[in-house]
This record gives sequence, structure tokens and C-alpha cells, in this order.
Amino acid sequence: MNRINIGLFGFGVVGQGIYKVINRATNAHAVISRICVRDVNKPRELAVDPSLLTDDADRILDDRNINLIVEVVDDAEASYRIVTSALRRGIPVVSGNKAMIARHLPELIELQREYDTALLYDASSCGSIPVIRNLEEYYDNDLLLEVKGILNGSSNYILSRVFDHDEDYQSALRRAQQLGFAESDPSFDIEGYDSLFKLIIITVHALGVYVEPERIFTYGITALSDFDIRYAREKRMKIKLVAQVVKVSDDQFTMFVMPEFVSPSRYIYSVDDEYNGVVIRGECYDRQFMFGKGAGSLPTASSILSDVMARRHGYRYEYKKMEYVNRPDYTTDVTLEIYLRYPDKEFLDRIPFISIGEMFQSAEANYVKGTIRLKDLIDVRPLLDNPEVFVCNVPRFFLELDD
Amino acid sequence: MNRINIGLFGFGVVGQGIYKVINRATNAHAVISRICVRDVNKPRELAVDPSLLTDDADRILDDRNINLIVEVVDDAEASYRIVTSALRRGIPVVSGNKAMIARHLPELIELQREYDTALLYDASSCGSIPVIRNLEEYYDNDLLLEVKGILNGSSNYILSRVFDHDEDYQSALRRAQQLGFAESDPSFDIEGYDSLFKLIIITVHALGVYVEPERIFTYGITALSDFDIRYAREKRMKIKLVAQVVKVSDDQFTMFVMPEFVSPSRYIYSVDDEYNGVVIRGECYDRQFMFGKGAGSLPTASSILSDVMARRHGYRYEYKKMEYVNRPDYTTDVTLEIYLRYPDKEFLDRIPFISIGEMFQSAEANYVKGTIRLKDLIDVRPLLDNPEVFVCNVPRFFLELDD
Repeated sequence: MNRINIGLFGFGVVGQGIYKVINRATNAHAVISRICVRDVNKPRELAVDPSLLTDDADRILDDRNINLIVEVVDDAEASYRIVTSALRRGIPVVSGNKAMIARHLPELIELQREYDTALLYDASSCGSIPVIRNLEEYYDNDLLLEVKGILNGSSNYILSRVFDHDEDYQSALRRAQQLGFAESDPSFDIEGYDSLFKLIIITVHALGVYVEPERIFTYGITALSDFDIRYAREKRMKIKLVAQVVKVSDDQFTMFVMPEFVSPSRYIYSVDDEYNGVVIRGECYDRQFMFGKGAGSLPTASSILSDVMARRHGYRYEYKKMEYVNRPDYTTDVTLEIYLRYPDKEFLDRIPFISIGEMFQSAEANYVKGTIRLKDLIDVRPLLDNPEVFVCNVPRFFLELDD
Repeated sequence: MNRINIGLFGFGVVGQGIYKVINRATNAHAVISRICVRDVNKPRELAVDPSLLTDDADRILDDRNINLIVEVVDDAEASYRIVTSALRRGIPVVSGNKAMIARHLPELIELQREYDTALLYDASSCGSIPVIRNLEEYYDNDLLLEVKGILNGSSNYILSRVFDHDEDYQSALRRAQQLGFAESDPSFDIEGYDSLFKLIIITVHALGVYVEPERIFTYGITALSDFDIRYAREKRMKIKLVAQVVKVSDDQFTMFVMPEFVSPSRYIYSVDDEYNGVVIRGECYDRQFMFGKGAGSLPTASSILSDVMARRHGYRYEYKKMEYVNRPDYTTDVTLEIYLRYPDKEFLDRIPFISIGEMFQSAEANYVKGTIRLKDLIDVRPLLDNPEVFVCNVPRFFLELDD
């Protein structure tokens, strides 16, 4: 492949960042040949040759000179149509749409095989941190035990305002929205779904197993209260929204997204502001830590550029671990220790704790700390969507499988 | 390549670690077919089938069933002979010998081309942290501005004992030797040469340029005194041994290894004990940080395993950046700010400072802080090997090129 002629779908903040970065990277031998947008006449901050713009996807998909699609549209359904259409025509694609990828990964892998083409998406998980490619290539062996981290920049920015800058939760959320870190509807970030989708993609490349989003316990920071914040501060901890996939035995692993008390001795304690941080733990190398900007126009664009450059050399994910003879199975038969703020005894009685180690009641709030099976927590998950309830993981060093 | 039959050279601490790790990684489809050692009868901690051992290199190099050489001998000259012989026979090699690789890299690249084979050496730089492969593959573009880090675990362990555990320098050094972090002759680690060799390799993969070791300013922590330690502590800084390669303009970069004052706000401040940490700075992604165990038997062995697995898929470094049309040139025409502890005025007069901003004299010690050209510092480098002298970088945010 001598020159890469890119058909770009989406020209919002990230798309415009890609345009700038590609033009700056002279050794990339890549040009943006055409840009598909919803409305060609919409005024845009970045001035581009109007003849580059089109609102007709087929003008890109049918152009034989275009040998790479870069897709950063904001709409998961449109993204799915573009990516699958391109793959079916044998055109390689670079995509940043984690929600779409996490939902359709088995089909997208199959399409890559069937049409002998490639879909790269390092930008979809942790922005500029090369997590996917490292899991696929460098940690391509049996030694991996755990991938755990802060995968969402917006929620981390908000928690960092609260715990590092003593701001209250509501004003931190507003500030995040003003800065453009959190969308006007921040639920995707705040409720943990963005982290969940990234975790699903990471797990495919970490352990070779795809797990549907619906099967994974996902709980965010929407209901975090001043009481919880004070509780964490008194224990000299921060609360972080953590996504994790952990091998609990040779044959089984578990995964979930939930807030977690983080003590100062841990790597992710110092992942502040809009940064992401990922800890990879293995049998022989102990822990490794990667840290960088997880979101934003230019960090995402530079990650897309890395995928574009990789295509110059014909790189594709091989999904090697999916071929392993002894892939581990997903389990929710594990015991967690959690902190639960709850409204009243009636509510507490409905939560099937195995044991309760600490119990506190006051006019302001009540909490318990106790152990519970993850699968039981999943069963009562709908009850937890209640502003008077907050659940936070009390991490153990190693998760244990139930007997 | 269906099964990897490894010929292993070297069966010391790292070699035995590789043996253990390869046997544990069942999905690697790799076996150690033969092990070349200096003395087959030497008693070893790890019991292996004696028929695996040989003291005759040709029994490996001439064995047509062996399709990968893994070389972790402790002697740079023997390493050079083994690696070049294997490459000339078209056998791919995984090596961990940074001194050998840093000295001979242009020839080793040429041999890989000539004999259409591969030499991988991710384990040579930063143990288990995948720096080389990420620079080669993921940061394969024009945006890279700087790679900077703590690349030597032994010297960092010693400095960490001093600055985090209030130990004195001499007892920290002894403890490092007892733990096996520092060799009985620790000069390779302490004087900065280990970091230098890693930096040379990193620069080839970061910027596509090879610079001979002799041309690079290298200064270690041998002469660090209680006075310097107190000075740093009073300023709430740590002293770390830092290796860095920095673009100073579009066309030029500089590189050096020297101790540096590190303030708490910097990523490398918290890289303690025997850990390594590398900061990669780019135009669009700001700073990324990778952190992990830089040395030790199993971390190094797991890094070797990653290289072995990569060979299963035919991976080789392409040295893509060496083909860039506009590679930057190495320069030492840059100005640094340094702290210099010195014995007397006569000595100070021989150091060609541009300007001196701070001057201190006492019965115990004298120091100045001032600006100096890197090339002038290189000219007086022999003078600095003096126990009454200590040089420490006072880092600026960005290095500037001289006019």
C-alpha cells in the first residue's frame, strides 16, 4: 500500500482532529480524500475544501481509490451500517465507536474473516493509550491475570474535582459539561456504560472471550452523595469508577464496572482529571501500568493515526487468543465485599448479603459493608437505581472464586 | 511456523526464568530444544534434563530443527558472536543484551535485511515494559517529541532507598547488591551505561536515528553525596537517574543520561524501588506514561516470551522510521541548566558555564547552578569523574536549541 486514501465518516470534534493530525504527519503518506457528513452546509470551525464534503455514503464506499475508511460518527447505528458495509466490500476500517464495537464484535470479527479485511479500533479504548494492540500483540500469552483501570475520562474528571479539588459533585458535573468532557446527557459516561463497552473490547483481546454487555454488572456514580464522599475521605481513600476483568482460577474469569474505594498505595489513585490509567497484572511481570489522556479530539486523533499507519503495513488484529484451546469461562460466581448506602431496613432485607461486617445508621444515611455474590448483586441490580442507594467496591487483593 | 523449537544460550538467572515461563505458557507452542552453557556440569538451582545441555554452540546453530535462538548470555562479545552467526544462517534471534545491541545495531539491522531474518529485543529495554515495540508500531508517526525515563532498576532502587526510606547511599548500595539488583561491580548500572545503551536502542525506534555511545553525555550517581541528597530534600525533590531523547526543533534532537532533580508533580517522581518508568510525549497526545518492573528474572523472561510469541506470527521490527525522508539530526548544541558540586575555584574555572544563577560555598561543599551548553559539558566530561564533583540536571519544561 503506497498511499492511503482515506474516506472519513464524521467531522465533529474528533473528525476535525483527525484531519489536522493527518495533515501534520507528513511521513504517514495518507490523505483524506473525502469526508461524509450529515449536513454539508453546516458551518464548521475548521475550513476545508467544500468539494471534499459529501452527504452520500456511497460516494465514499463506491470510490475505488479510497483504500481505508475512518469512521468516527456519533451514532452507533450509523456506525454499524458504515462499518459493516465497508467490510463487506473488502475495505479496511478504522473505527472509534466503542458502543457499536462492543455490541457487535463477534459479527465484526466474522466479517473480517469472511471478506479478508481488517477493522482496527485502538482509539475506541482509552484514547491515546495503546491498550488493545498491546494486549493483542505483547501480552499474547497465558500469563495475563487481570486488566483493571479507569477507562472513562469524563467520570474520572468529575471524581477528581471532588476528591482532589474539594468540589461538590453537582458543580463538578457542571464544570465537566462546560469543558466538554461530559456530554449534555452524561449518563453514558457517569453510569459506567462507556467503561463497560471498553472493558468488553479489552476482554476479547486480553482473554479471547466475548461477553455480552447485558451479562455484566455495571454501576456508575450517578447516586454518589456527600455522605459517601465524606466516608471515603475519612478513610483517606478516593472513589474511582473502575472497570476490571480478573482471572479467578485457571479456567474462569469475572468482570464488572463499579465505583471502588482506592487507597493511596495503588497506581490508579494518582490517575486524576480526564486521564485514563490501566493496570495489567501477569504471572511473571507483576503489575504494569499505562497512563495517558483517555479522551479529547487530538489524543483520539493521534490514536486513529496510529491505526492508519498500521494499515500501511497491513496490520490487523488476529484475535489469536480466541483460538486458544483452553480459554477461560466467564463467571459471576465470585464473592465481593461492598459498601452499600441504603434508605431503610426494608431495602436492606432485599439485598442478599452473605455476611455483614460493618453497619452504620444515622439520620443522614445508613450503610453496611459486607460480602455478596456478584451474581446475587446482578439479580438485584434494578433495585440499585435509586438516589438513596450507592454501591462501592471494597477491593481485595485477589478475588476468590466461590466454593 | 507451527511449533517454536528454541535454542537457548545462557542459563543463568534470566535463562532459568525463561525456561520456567516457556514451560508454563501452554498456548505458546514453544519448547526449549537445547541449552548452550559454558559448563554443563556446573550445579544449577533448576533441575533440567542433562541431555538438553551442551557447551558447543554449533550443536544449536547447526540443528535444522531449531527455528529460534534466544540469547541471554552475560558477555557482550559472546552475545555478538552468537547473534551474528545465527542471523547469517537465517535463524531469527531474540536477545536481551542491550550493551551488545546498542554497540552493533546498524550492523545487526543490515544483517537482518541481508539474510531476511529477524532480531527482536524488547526485553533489552525496560524489562517487562513494551517500549520498543510500541515506539516501532504504535508511535510510528511524526508526532513524537520526547522519550524520557528511568531505564535502570538497580540505580533507581538505590536512589529510592535514599529518598523514600532515608537510608544513606553506601548502605543502599550494599543492600542492592545483597538483593542481587546491583552486580558486584555495579558501575554498569550506577554510572549510567545501562541506561545509555537502552536509550540508544529506544532512539532508533523513536526517531529512526542511531547515535554511537561515545557521542552521548553519560553521567551516573557514583559521586552522589550526603550534601547533594540534603540539597534535593530541602527543595522537596528526589534525584533520579534519567535518560532522555528530546526533539529540540523539527530537524534536531538531543539525548543524554544524567541525574536529575525531580519534583513531586512529575510522573517519574513516583517510580520507586527497582521499577522503570517511561514518559512518551507527543504533539497531540501530550504525555503517556508506562510503568513496570524493569529487571529481574521473571519480568525479563515474560518479555522474552512476548518476543517468542511474536515470532510465531512472523513479527519483525521494520525500522520504518529509518526510511523517513526527514529524519532529525542529533545535536549537542543545546543549553542545559545544571547543579554542580565542585571542590574549588580552580575546578570551577575550567567548567565553561554560560551563566551562573546561584552560588554556594561552605566548609562542607560548594555548588553552583548555571546554564551550560551540552557540547561544552561533553568536552569537560573527564573532569567530572571526581568524587568531589556531582552534576545534576535542573530540568526545564522544554529544552531549547541554541541560537
